[in-house]
Amino acid sequence: MEIAVDTFFLKPDAQGTLQAQIQEMVAEGILSGRFRIGEKLPSSRRLAVHLGVSRITVTLALTELVASDYLISKGRSGYFVSETAPVPPSYVPPRPSHDTMDWESAIARKFTGGDTPHRPQNWYEYRYPFIYGQADGALFDHTNWRQCALRALGHREFSKLANDQFDQDDPMLVEYIARHSLPRRGISARPEEILITVGAQNALWLAAQVLLSPDRRAAFEDPTYYALRDQLVNTGCALSPICIDKDGLPPDLIPASSDVIFVTPSHQSPTTINMPKERRKALLERARDINAVIVEDDYEFEMSFLKPPAPALKSLDDSGRVVYVGSFSKSLFPGLRLGYLVGPEPFIRQARALRANVLRHPPGHVQRTVAYFLSLGHYDAQIRRMAKVLHARRIALEDGIAQNGLKIAGGGLYGGSALWMQAPDGTHMGEVAQALRQDSVLIEPGAPFFAHHNRRQEFYRLGYSSLEANLIAPGLAHLARAIEKFSPR
Amino acid sequence: MEIAVDTFFLKPDAQGTLQAQIQEMVAEGILSGRFRIGEKLPSSRRLAVHLGVSRITVTLALTELVASDYLISKGRSGYFVSETAPVPPSYVPPRPSHDTMDWESAIARKFTGGDTPHRPQNWYEYRYPFIYGQADGALFDHTNWRQCALRALGHREFSKLANDQFDQDDPMLVEYIARHSLPRRGISARPEEILITVGAQNALWLAAQVLLSPDRRAAFEDPTYYALRDQLVNTGCALSPICIDKDGLPPDLIPASSDVIFVTPSHQSPTTINMPKERRKALLERARDINAVIVEDDYEFEMSFLKPPAPALKSLDDSGRVVYVGSFSKSLFPGLRLGYLVGPEPFIRQARALRANVLRHPPGHVQRTVAYFLSLGHYDAQIRRMAKVLHARRIALEDGIAQNGLKIAGGGLYGGSALWMQAPDGTHMGEVAQALRQDSVLIEPGAPFFAHHNRRQEFYRLGYSSLEANLIAPGLAHLARAIEKFSPR
Repeated sequence: MEIAVDTFFLKPDAQGTLQAQIQEMVAEGILSGRFRIGEKLPSSRRLAVHLGVSRITVTLALTELVASDYLISKGRSGYFVSETAPVPPSYVPPRPSHDTMDWESAIARKFTGGDTPHRPQNWYEYRYPFIYGQADGALFDHTNWRQCALRALGHREFSKLANDQFDQDDPMLVEYIARHSLPRRGISARPEEILITVGAQNALWLAAQVLLSPDRRAAFEDPTYYALRDQLVNTGCALSPICIDKDGLPPDLIPASSDVIFVTPSHQSPTTINMPKERRKALLERARDINAVIVEDDYEFEMSFLKPPAPALKSLDDSGRVVYVGSFSKSLFPGLRLGYLVGPEPFIRQARALRANVLRHPPGHVQRTVAYFLSLGHYDAQIRRMAKVLHARRIALEDGIAQNGLKIAGGGLYGGSALWMQAPDGTHMGEVAQALRQDSVLIEPGAPFFAHHNRRQEFYRLGYSSLEANLIAPGLAHLARAIEKFSPR
Repeated sequence: MEIAVDTFFLKPDAQGTLQAQIQEMVAEGILSGRFRIGEKLPSSRRLAVHLGVSRITVTLALTELVASDYLISKGRSGYFVSETAPVPPSYVPPRPSHDTMDWESAIARKFTGGDTPHRPQNWYEYRYPFIYGQADGALFDHTNWRQCALRALGHREFSKLANDQFDQDDPMLVEYIARHSLPRRGISARPEEILITVGAQNALWLAAQVLLSPDRRAAFEDPTYYALRDQLVNTGCALSPICIDKDGLPPDLIPASSDVIFVTPSHQSPTTINMPKERRKALLERARDINAVIVEDDYEFEMSFLKPPAPALKSLDDSGRVVYVGSFSKSLFPGLRLGYLVGPEPFIRQARALRANVLRHPPGHVQRTVAYFLSLGHYDAQIRRMAKVLHARRIALEDGIAQNGLKIAGGGLYGGSALWMQAPDGTHMGEVAQALRQDSVLIEPGAPFFAHHNRRQEFYRLGYSSLEANLIAPGLAHLARAIEKFSPR
């Protein structure tokens, strides 16, 4: 590849002759790793025109660089970075000379330091990755996905999908959600009541921003999904984490001053508890009594291979107070980042305006690819295939758990892709998880899911969507040994 | 397509016999448009198992529906929605029975009512769309883009791209930006100083959120990009719009209490003014004197076909106080939604944490597709092709403007894809724009770019990236006639 001529600049305040400046510029490019061995320099003519200097000056500079082994000349083909030029290990540009800015005080709001734990980026290199929510490439329908992507990239679609949609969504995707996805959850919604988001987390964030402010109160499950808690903290609202019981969030414990209730009735996150119908009704009644909005995160309802899923909480709601969060990222792959928000029009209008302000809209081609994948039936086929495989893994997992004397704390009555587990009292699962890495085992300690004052150390989550059934038993054997070792006697 | 069995639910509080409930359920699905003519119903056996009722009950219900013309029975093939079934015009689900929630008071923060003007969704159906920032499908390298997309969707890449990247970006894309894109602007940056965003607007939003709060002050150009002003308003900070002069933002007018200065030095948005080097130095000095951060939006620098672009403001910054916003969405297509933020590590760390909280990361495949398109040289070729075409259109536009006696207010010394125009004093360009729609002409009135107290009605913007050169003259003739008609005499 030829180095682009427009990456060359004479510094306005540089010292020395023009020739020396050009030599320095090229040498610095090589020394910093920006130009690599074998790369071709622009011709002396183009370089001269671009820099506004005479061609002879450029030629003299390049000749000097050949003499000092930075470049080689290949006659008419031009100048190339020499094979014997000094090479840095990788491209590390120099720090600016005088970093005089005090960034500590320039930053008005901090967003680091939340509860979201660090996970190794290379988790897929572990042999036993009992982690949650990642995709298994072997289960994905690559062929049909690629065909849908190609169709969405076709000429005919370009003008509509490639353009700035301002605050609009792909009508084909919205219609599919209204006609097919939501009816499966017992929900009816018109297109104006649906907003496409950059993943379910983005949907939760939008809901929190529209519904909360420092003078409002959010009630939410404890334990809960840590990223949701980070989002609530960032709104500055009052926080009421509420300990769940065996049926999920207990309505009686929700403070009367709550404005918004965040809940995961289908599979409580992270415990996988399914909220029974009576509890759902009581929750809706409590919300009506205290005039609160409910935000229902209905993640992973499709992975119901043990028995059919109960309808969504929103399907029971006849007062129009439930906002519903759905996702395709989990069932297709999380890197897709596509979810949706369903709610009454006045709410969706605000969420749409905020989304437009923050990022305009999710990429058009991604929306259309999913719309094709859904409407051609590939999505349903994929879900069936995944459910079958997850079912087999679930059986292997429960067998292994029984054999190793481990304890399930949360069952996942309908299926799902993880179990919530409990080690003997006093076991610090953060330490166990750390130790297990050397056995190539990854598990998720439960502590970050709990509110700060209530960090239980003995819980952990076992995801089974990213490792094959035959690896589950040996992985659990490692786990059981580690828990044994770290448990107090 | 067969209607999925799991879209059928018996309502918990329904009246009547089970058979009647099933009939109602199917009839309602047809009447609401959810089930369409010719669609197949699930078999009576599956429906019975799913609903937990006897098969004979289901069969009786379906037979009734055949009798009443909703369904037809095709013997062993099963039941289908009849061709003579009543059909609604389109799918309009019923509103919930009792919408008792007071959403006006449930919404804590409003985001509607900003300055961003409404643009017709079907702009591409207009014959003379003088609008800004949309893609011309005819100029896009579809073939290579599709190949890059397919490569990014390949099996080998799946495990890395399909997964949740938490807060990470595609290293291949980041490296390309560091080694190739930024050096063209005279900027050196390490990967930790770069963050990929969901378009340039998302980059500006992240910067505003990290750097501003109600006790801070933002200085920005007047006129300016309206979506930026909406973002600043949403932070609750103090606002100082500053009237630009012929060289762009005048540093002397920036209040000493400003914490952040938002500026578009390469092409002032919307006037396309290029800030001269002396003014840039003065701006950096002013920022240093008052200890402010500068956010530089370097949009569209690649479209410099008249002369080479000046280096970015950030390239002159030796105190590390400039945050830089770049974009691929404009040069490829805006529906792509991909941009980036470059700044010192402490700033990028906060912006990254906020992005992770709001949406985790931009879709992995989109990032990798762009990385391939860039690194294989397709992007540069595309830019050259676009620059050539835009140059021809620019000539046609300037010719037409001269012939029709229209007045250019902002030139765009380096190129660009729009001109800033001025009608005679007292002309209300909002009204002119409205009237021009019936001639199939779209232009952008300038008023929404100005701060509220200073809404100039006689300015407008002419974009030339979305219509062919030979359409420019006839479009301008319409425009000139309309201005003539609406100008006060």
